[in-house]
Amino acid sequence: MTGVPLADLLKAAGLKKSAKYTAHYAADLHLSGDPSKPSLSRGVRIEKALDPNTMIVWAMNRQPLPNIHGGPVRLIVPGWSGSASQKWLTRITIRDRDHDGPGMTEFSYRTAIKPMVPGGKADPANFRILESMPVRSIITNPANGAKFAAGTKELKLRGASWAGDLTVKQVDLSTDFGASWQRATLEKPTNKYDWQRWTATVKLPSDGYFEIWARATDSKGAMQPHQAGFWNPQGYGGNAMHRIAVLVG
Amino acid sequence: MTGVPLADLLKAAGLKKSAKYTAHYAADLHLSGDPSKPSLSRGVRIEKALDPNTMIVWAMNRQPLPNIHGGPVRLIVPGWSGSASQKWLTRITIRDRDHDGPGMTEFSYRTAIKPMVPGGKADPANFRILESMPVRSIITNPANGAKFAAGTKELKLRGASWAGDLTVKQVDLSTDFGASWQRATLEKPTNKYDWQRWTATVKLPSDGYFEIWARATDSKGAMQPHQAGFWNPQGYGGNAMHRIAVLVG
Repeated sequence: MTGVPLADLLKAAGLKKSAKYTAHYAADLHLSGDPSKPSLSRGVRIEKALDPNTMIVWAMNRQPLPNIHGGPVRLIVPGWSGSASQKWLTRITIRDRDHDGPGMTEFSYRTAIKPMVPGGKADPANFRILESMPVRSIITNPANGAKFAAGTKELKLRGASWAGDLTVKQVDLSTDFGASWQRATLEKPTNKYDWQRWTATVKLPSDGYFEIWARATDSKGAMQPHQAGFWNPQGYGGNAMHRIAVLVG
Repeated sequence: MTGVPLADLLKAAGLKKSAKYTAHYAADLHLSGDPSKPSLSRGVRIEKALDPNTMIVWAMNRQPLPNIHGGPVRLIVPGWSGSASQKWLTRITIRDRDHDGPGMTEFSYRTAIKPMVPGGKADPANFRILESMPVRSIITNPANGAKFAAGTKELKLRGASWAGDLTVKQVDLSTDFGASWQRATLEKPTNKYDWQRWTATVKLPSDGYFEIWARATDSKGAMQPHQAGFWNPQGYGGNAMHRIAVLVG
């Protein structure tokens, strides 16, 4: 990516002491296609806007940023939900309170402060804005549903993991539905916000049907839950462990 | 319980070198009530039959064993599935091979050697007899669905755990769907095969809906899985962790 830290732009424009939040506006239309309706406008706390990793970008791999990726100009707000990285950016204003554009209020990109009964009726007053995304990991090889020859005794696995504004401390794997866990070999991030790749070799005691579960733990010790537990109406923040099924023989 | 080790009876009767398995017979009828059909007859490997904890009993709390508990005489085979502790015992024979009475073959009290695709068609040749029961734990207080006053910041929990022929090494609790775990205070068993009681106090970060999950680990390091994973047609050996839901406020 080629661009400029958003902080440089904001400082050049001059920030007031009252600056609390950004408000991003873009060239895309409301989801309905009706140009008279306001389109999605997200923003971030001013601290995140001033983080040197938050950028306005216009090129990728030394080529102009393609339209599909938000060109000619977009925001990159790493570690937070993708919607904060407004594509087709046209304008940024600064708010002295939490931004309240479409996509910031009610249940959009927000999670409950007091955990809800699954399926219960939500009250917007019980919600906070989702900021840094929670720790996650994926198994990228083998694929879910892969079949292996009878007698296969071990599987080589690889995958990736990330943790929003944090880093990943460890990745563990289970082939017995969580009864035992084995540590993966985890690479350090090559730079801030890079995915951390992991590899592991797991032994299987027999032929048959197995599931492989991957579970990452972030640098503050929070682990992926075993299911997307803290229910909210839009499902934001769900980071249940990744599971694949394999069949040997 | 008052009784005599089965080993004493078997030794008095005289065991041949070829003794491999017991076969237990009882006064109850076939489930259909048809007296011409053979009723359940289970047995255990001779090593377990000779364990001093395996007993023939006829009294409980210094009273004759009630009929509902298998009196006048029953077997107690601790740590193994209850069906091995034949009630209303009338006869024991010794086999020179695995016992093949009703309840010993096909899919009865047996689990797959090669894990099965859930819901798949089972082949009896792929099954072994379930022996020592896997590690389990339960939350006995509070009850599932319990409600607490708004502002309740911690809950006192208690429960029990056991692990077949093994002991329980630790019990862990989670209030965030497995993202973090806290160790319970675990009592030692007061005697072999006793349940091990545990207690814990967990803090809750807010009012709302929470689940409490309890997970025991046995003395060989095997932990309860997060779901009853290794599927078999009758569901034997399932030992998924116990979960309750509570509501604060």
